[in-house]
Amino acid sequence: MKFARRMEALKASEIREILKLIENPDVISFAGGLPAPELFPVEEMKKVSVAVLEEDGQQALQYSATEGYRPLREKIAKRMEVIGIGTTADNILITSGSQQGLDFSGKVFLDEDDVVVCESPSYLGAINAFRAYSPKFVEIETDEDGMIIEDLEKALAETKNIKMIYVIPDFQNPSGRTWSIERRKRLIALANQYDLPVVEDNPYGELRFEGERPPAIKSFDTEGRVIYLGTFSKTFCPGLRLGWTLGDGELLQKYIFVKQGADLHTNTLTQRELNKFLEMYDIDAHIEKIKDVYRKRRDVMMDSIKKYFPKNVKYTYPEGGLFTWCELPQEMNAREIFLKSIKVNVAFVPGGSFFPNGGKENTFRLNYSMMSEEKIEEGIKRLGKVLQEEMTAGKTI
Amino acid sequence: MKFARRMEALKASEIREILKLIENPDVISFAGGLPAPELFPVEEMKKVSVAVLEEDGQQALQYSATEGYRPLREKIAKRMEVIGIGTTADNILITSGSQQGLDFSGKVFLDEDDVVVCESPSYLGAINAFRAYSPKFVEIETDEDGMIIEDLEKALAETKNIKMIYVIPDFQNPSGRTWSIERRKRLIALANQYDLPVVEDNPYGELRFEGERPPAIKSFDTEGRVIYLGTFSKTFCPGLRLGWTLGDGELLQKYIFVKQGADLHTNTLTQRELNKFLEMYDIDAHIEKIKDVYRKRRDVMMDSIKKYFPKNVKYTYPEGGLFTWCELPQEMNAREIFLKSIKVNVAFVPGGSFFPNGGKENTFRLNYSMMSEEKIEEGIKRLGKVLQEEMTAGKTI
Repeated sequence: MKFARRMEALKASEIREILKLIENPDVISFAGGLPAPELFPVEEMKKVSVAVLEEDGQQALQYSATEGYRPLREKIAKRMEVIGIGTTADNILITSGSQQGLDFSGKVFLDEDDVVVCESPSYLGAINAFRAYSPKFVEIETDEDGMIIEDLEKALAETKNIKMIYVIPDFQNPSGRTWSIERRKRLIALANQYDLPVVEDNPYGELRFEGERPPAIKSFDTEGRVIYLGTFSKTFCPGLRLGWTLGDGELLQKYIFVKQGADLHTNTLTQRELNKFLEMYDIDAHIEKIKDVYRKRRDVMMDSIKKYFPKNVKYTYPEGGLFTWCELPQEMNAREIFLKSIKVNVAFVPGGSFFPNGGKENTFRLNYSMMSEEKIEEGIKRLGKVLQEEMTAGKTI
Repeated sequence: MKFARRMEALKASEIREILKLIENPDVISFAGGLPAPELFPVEEMKKVSVAVLEEDGQQALQYSATEGYRPLREKIAKRMEVIGIGTTADNILITSGSQQGLDFSGKVFLDEDDVVVCESPSYLGAINAFRAYSPKFVEIETDEDGMIIEDLEKALAETKNIKMIYVIPDFQNPSGRTWSIERRKRLIALANQYDLPVVEDNPYGELRFEGERPPAIKSFDTEGRVIYLGTFSKTFCPGLRLGWTLGDGELLQKYIFVKQGADLHTNTLTQRELNKFLEMYDIDAHIEKIKDVYRKRRDVMMDSIKKYFPKNVKYTYPEGGLFTWCELPQEMNAREIFLKSIKVNVAFVPGGSFFPNGGKENTFRLNYSMMSEEKIEEGIKRLGKVLQEEMTAGKTI
């Protein structure tokens, strides 16, 4: 049997493989991007499930519109106002997590060998989703304010067959960085100039621990070329696989056609449950609760890194989201350190996989949402010791 | 902005468009393929939702394995025995309906311009799913026993770049026909000879009103080249989007990679709810209830067709499933008849769309699962009148 050419490039996500390795409950894991399950609204879900099935159980279990459940789409549209996006339910498609919006973006825009422009590093799950359409990747260097626009400009001028720009502007995965407003505007100006779509992936923006949320890149889009991907995975719960794709008219229609062929529509019952949750409870109060917990964990992680990591490890200070990103001296290899770290029951994700074209093996990502404050301090302490030993060993050679 | 080439071929499913036309509750619809919602286990779903959330609510709302929830996969594996498939949970991937298994089959096997061999007519949703990968289609004539094997043999010998054979062997959509055991064996022999994968799509097999279920095509597969797609949409409820892909080892692994990029995993909560339903209730007794209702509706539809349709309309007599298939005299056009039929509030799906290469506009599909017996008789009576008038008018020209 012969497979499609794309299958050569597809492999298991390194994170998923790592997560399998560390099923041992003794492991202190900074590896996944999992929300803290003790914050999930389990009791509320029981109430909304029963309410939905009692009110209109038959419709809740039947096939439904590809676009999604309209009352839910209306509520999502309204929630977009706070980041400067004025829109309506007509511009919202409900997807199976924002991951599905990534897959659809590949399907809508990419032919074999087309180019995706992305941040360096970028989200592993997006890279894998796009790889199914056999593109090439051009990575743009980033700093504390997002993509370095001069580098982007140069790439756009010099590269053929660019079809899409993909960015995660708020608390980026894996770097934890957030784009400045000025860079957002300049990105839009360039997308307009080169007539390119921008996929704005924003799973973490609502989890800001301090300061003000910047307006979405989409809010500066006057030509309908930004597709905004959102999700309830980090603010509600991920197991329900509820995300959305926001796009203007004809462009969103293409995503809807793709959704029809991919899985007809998203789970009807779950959409109605989330809609009922938004009616019966205050999700913003719920998000505040999540942020309080994550903020403290972030603080403990930052303090611990400062205390226990060797001084020549660089790291970002995230104002929200789930991750910080560490850079070791050039000659060090985070995959090798992972193998040593897992021996003292501490896990993280080596950074190499976040670079679609490879390299930067001296980086790694740390998650702080899943572990208790005590475990975070203990884990960082152990990891600091492993790093210290590696550096000392390196010097003795 | 430039879209991928595939987007030129993708359009809204004709069925979905028709379903939008007929939201008027006065319409007697034979158009959709919707299960009867009055048979959905609404009360049971309330109980299993609460049970799952009480037992392990946090895990039920968390991210979970791409492959799916193991206890559910084990139960599905066991349910495959009745059609001759001996398998284990390791060979089962939970998908968002069997529709997602169709999309994944396209992704795993098809490059642009590769050939899919399918029945003529074939399932519209599969044709649309595959179209996203820009293949060509070779249609094989079918009769009451399935594909005409001599035609298949000829096509396999003469056609280049065939990558996949796609069939719906039980109560086919749209034709309502079932493959004989002999044809199933001969299909496998040819697939072996030409080293081709077979995608066996079986959403309706469990809804057999009389006679015995034939063994699955997969049951004759000794070389791991059949991928079997199943679903709970017709036997439980479709809104939950729960299906499965069954395949051997390495081949299934490719589907799992694809699933990871497409949406990470299927809804955790819903998988556990279905699993709990299978533990707390007798799904086979539930399926018997469904069959009793559909059998009667099938009978009323068949009797009414016999009574009210002009004698030169050919139709199939389905022993299960949801559909019958009608063929008008060659010169008649079912799309034109649809426009007249909808004026008397009766809807169906013109058959042309079920032929990926076009043609056969003199065919249409009738669904009998959704409407009450009274409405079925009334609807067929009205449609019979429209057909009679059309034929009479045709003769006067």
